[in-house]
Amino acid sequence: MENEHRPPEAGGKAVFLFDLDGTLVDSVYQHVTAWRNAFGKMNIKLSNWRIHKRIGMSDELIVRLLSHEAGHLVSIPDVEMMRKLHTEFFLREAGNLRLLPGARELLTFLSTNSVPYAIATSSSMERAADSLKMLGIGSDVPVITREQASHGKPDPALFLAAARNMGVDISDCIVVGDSVWDILAARRAKALGVGLLCGGYAEEELFRAGAYRVYEDPADLLENLDELGVYR
Amino acid sequence: MENEHRPPEAGGKAVFLFDLDGTLVDSVYQHVTAWRNAFGKMNIKLSNWRIHKRIGMSDELIVRLLSHEAGHLVSIPDVEMMRKLHTEFFLREAGNLRLLPGARELLTFLSTNSVPYAIATSSSMERAADSLKMLGIGSDVPVITREQASHGKPDPALFLAAARNMGVDISDCIVVGDSVWDILAARRAKALGVGLLCGGYAEEELFRAGAYRVYEDPADLLENLDELGVYR
Repeated sequence: MENEHRPPEAGGKAVFLFDLDGTLVDSVYQHVTAWRNAFGKMNIKLSNWRIHKRIGMSDELIVRLLSHEAGHLVSIPDVEMMRKLHTEFFLREAGNLRLLPGARELLTFLSTNSVPYAIATSSSMERAADSLKMLGIGSDVPVITREQASHGKPDPALFLAAARNMGVDISDCIVVGDSVWDILAARRAKALGVGLLCGGYAEEELFRAGAYRVYEDPADLLENLDELGVYR
Repeated sequence: MENEHRPPEAGGKAVFLFDLDGTLVDSVYQHVTAWRNAFGKMNIKLSNWRIHKRIGMSDELIVRLLSHEAGHLVSIPDVEMMRKLHTEFFLREAGNLRLLPGARELLTFLSTNSVPYAIATSSSMERAADSLKMLGIGSDVPVITREQASHGKPDPALFLAAARNMGVDISDCIVVGDSVWDILAARRAKALGVGLLCGGYAEEELFRAGAYRVYEDPADLLENLDELGVYR
């Protein structure tokens, strides 16, 4: 068989691993602003679009790669300071965050139909807490944050940890994310990657990263779940 | 000849028509936030990415198309009120605006080398004033704002007005913009459209809209001006 990816077999179970920011919560643009402000405090000037293209990566990579692009070398304490600044700026905006259309409905549908899912985010628990609360994520849903994996995306460690936590094979998982880094991580882990446009990446970028399918947002994914082997 | 677009002939003059927001000034993400807040005041909830994809269009189209997407019908007074709200929110951020890398250097190079250019923006003069000042645009550079054209982009009226103002044929002009709407307007006007990535659109989106070339930002365009017939 040429394509090693396959939808779960009849009788097998689809398992979903969701990214959080930009996938279920409309927070990418607030993250861009928070990073711009954090870099600004360190006198590192970056265009917004360059920051946007890195969102979804681990904080360490965001700081190191963007500083390098701007011609700065940052030390490990600098990285830590900028992570803190970013969290501080981001949490100021937390009151303005909203779920993406269909996010709660999608998760409710999966729960009701006994389709297992987990959340795997490059974010820290501190930064993710409000979003998880808005989504109504209970203790029955595994949540893997940056603290529980050796590396953030595009390293597949987060998704591998989520699959392990659920006792499923990663190659039976469908990773849903808005960023190129989610899709690349899914591919390295041999999971199917499904892209969502609601983080601001273009359809072509997600397909070029290897997305199996691309939908607009969680509402559009919910409409088309049959395509991914979840039949009504 | 199959391709009716052509670089200016030897001896002819390249003429540049620049978009402003997202092309010379790093303001697209601030516009997204300002529109989100303006729509929010009217109780219209929109995802950030949907707003981002409309930036560059005229205010009227942004309000009408996005309201429609969100399932609202807006009246003409509503459009006017939301334009005002957006301007108010945007101007609060005006202190945080920065030029995009190479913007001033590019315009200085063109001036020094007697390559004529104009600015053509869907924005109002009130909203564009700070940006024009940062760029050091003098009275010798034609600036066409929304007030001087019957329609905003993707209608070509702004670019046609700019060419008329300069006494040049629109088909001898090179339109430089960051949004799909700039490139589509250029194409309708039979000008060459050059895309810049610094407004957050993907390369593929700009090429698909018909871009002749795509560069990262004004600095990258300046590096590659020879490709567009401006020889050093």
